[in-house]
Amino acid sequence: MKVSELGEFRLIDLLADVINSTKGPDNTIWKQVLVGSGDDTAAWRGDGSIQLATTDSLVQDTHFKLELTAWDDLGWKSLAVNLSDIAAMGGIPTYALVSLSLPGELDTECIVNLSRGMADIAGKYGVAIVGGNIAAAEKVTVTVSLVGSLKGGNPLLRSAAAPGDMVAITGYTGLAAAGLRILKEKREQTDESARLLTQAHLRPVPRVEQGQKLLKLGVKAAIDISDGLIADLEHVCKASHVSATINKDLVPIHPALKQHFPSEYESMALAGGEDYELLFTAPDKTMEKVRKSIEWPVTVIGEITKREADEVKIVDTTGRTYESQISGWEHFRSTI
Amino acid sequence: MKVSELGEFRLIDLLADVINSTKGPDNTIWKQVLVGSGDDTAAWRGDGSIQLATTDSLVQDTHFKLELTAWDDLGWKSLAVNLSDIAAMGGIPTYALVSLSLPGELDTECIVNLSRGMADIAGKYGVAIVGGNIAAAEKVTVTVSLVGSLKGGNPLLRSAAAPGDMVAITGYTGLAAAGLRILKEKREQTDESARLLTQAHLRPVPRVEQGQKLLKLGVKAAIDISDGLIADLEHVCKASHVSATINKDLVPIHPALKQHFPSEYESMALAGGEDYELLFTAPDKTMEKVRKSIEWPVTVIGEITKREADEVKIVDTTGRTYESQISGWEHFRSTI
Repeated sequence: MKVSELGEFRLIDLLADVINSTKGPDNTIWKQVLVGSGDDTAAWRGDGSIQLATTDSLVQDTHFKLELTAWDDLGWKSLAVNLSDIAAMGGIPTYALVSLSLPGELDTECIVNLSRGMADIAGKYGVAIVGGNIAAAEKVTVTVSLVGSLKGGNPLLRSAAAPGDMVAITGYTGLAAAGLRILKEKREQTDESARLLTQAHLRPVPRVEQGQKLLKLGVKAAIDISDGLIADLEHVCKASHVSATINKDLVPIHPALKQHFPSEYESMALAGGEDYELLFTAPDKTMEKVRKSIEWPVTVIGEITKREADEVKIVDTTGRTYESQISGWEHFRSTI
Repeated sequence: MKVSELGEFRLIDLLADVINSTKGPDNTIWKQVLVGSGDDTAAWRGDGSIQLATTDSLVQDTHFKLELTAWDDLGWKSLAVNLSDIAAMGGIPTYALVSLSLPGELDTECIVNLSRGMADIAGKYGVAIVGGNIAAAEKVTVTVSLVGSLKGGNPLLRSAAAPGDMVAITGYTGLAAAGLRILKEKREQTDESARLLTQAHLRPVPRVEQGQKLLKLGVKAAIDISDGLIADLEHVCKASHVSATINKDLVPIHPALKQHFPSEYESMALAGGEDYELLFTAPDKTMEKVRKSIEWPVTVIGEITKREADEVKIVDTTGRTYESQISGWEHFRSTI
């Protein structure tokens, strides 16, 4: 079977099965592991705190096109997507490593700009980029690995959603997908709202502080929205052995999205990937505390139910049910 | 200027300069950093131990050709090269993350075999592969990031060589370069010695235990031999602001290397890359202890001197000096 037929998520499961075969009785290091593959980051017990680690690659012509992307934006985003994974665990990002593959004909100025974008976001989030390596390749790949830590309590997990929890998201979704469309269609970006959308795609802002706050306030389950709202909610449901019902009329729509995509904003908000907002679930009481304490929009869009046939049921305010044909971003099914 | 004109090592310096600009006064995390880029791994102060981290990529058609490489060997090597970096710091490898980029048309069986090779070496060295990600790409790139720890004392550093130190290596060099030649030239591998050479290229063995022992015995300076004996000794000299004189007649030559490359074995041993043995320096007394305690060949091949014009001077037993035209592996200058 081809890799593309299996799809990214089942491929990861397959790898995890083989890797788990190394968990022999002599392999004591596994006893410290709290979270292996299958969540936003790995987690293990460190000497005095829980340690988190994640890695993510941006691949030319899969995740970005050089003609649509400035090098400093690429540097920013390559660290941002990893910061978002640490955010989704409620962790504090600490140390990063960068692995660059690129063609020898590239101008060194590109690499300087890439580094500037990385240094920029690293500085903002208090991350130290402590090492890396560079290799020759036909196309550009930027892989960042990021370590983080977490003091007190367990990390936010995909597997901790429980029936009765409310489902909420931070901020707005669909903006990055809209921004990518604007860039691909070479639409004019004369107004502020178009720039807001393209920036959402080019320079996503990871919700690191918000993640830490969610953890502190007693939230147990979260994921970052990278594959799309519905797809990522499905990941949570799958990991938690629950289902979810969301009311699509409650999903917040940013005015800029509605303005530029008047007939598509809803599907973009539900399925557009790479927003790097947080989706989380919590009981009513906790949710109330969250809404009062986080200085960033938090919107309840549905609730967690017992496991049903469908992982995610989409309804509207009148109670009508919609087919969930809205698929998220899967790396072997859709490319930019 | 093109990336290839600048070369890998100066490009890394350039990146480090930009990255170091993030070391603002507010960026407290940098205060915990013991070793940034420029050594075998990064190192920082953890809660109760020093933490190490490194990352390395194997890129199709730069580091390997699919037609010459079995998938399980690729999996093994992708972790081995990172283990070797931890070994060169004297550390204990702990947790690994894997970032795979590959074409959707690949058969999933390839990925299963890749994972088996990784799981195999992870099990042998007590490493837990705790996460990773998979992305679509035209060619295969395997990036592994590896975390390690170190209890008591400072890591082995490239920058700790001192005049008067002896220079020694573990094992033999040139074997991996010879193995690659045998594979590329499609020579028959009917005898044991040819297989020994090709295995040195395909399944290098990182010297993790030896590195830990060196540290315990009081060695301060080490590097793993990935770019070639002379090139890596140059890295040590540059980082330590010293020079070195080595006697090429003392460099150990493996019988298999001499047998298969009777006219080239010497240059292969001096310049062949990817052996993943350790090069280290230490005063006479420490060296004596090392030779008695390590169950693996250790050979003194020269000594560290004060900084001179040349970083590395090559002589023979008669005292004759040789031009050091022998260049190591640099990733934008030579590919497989």
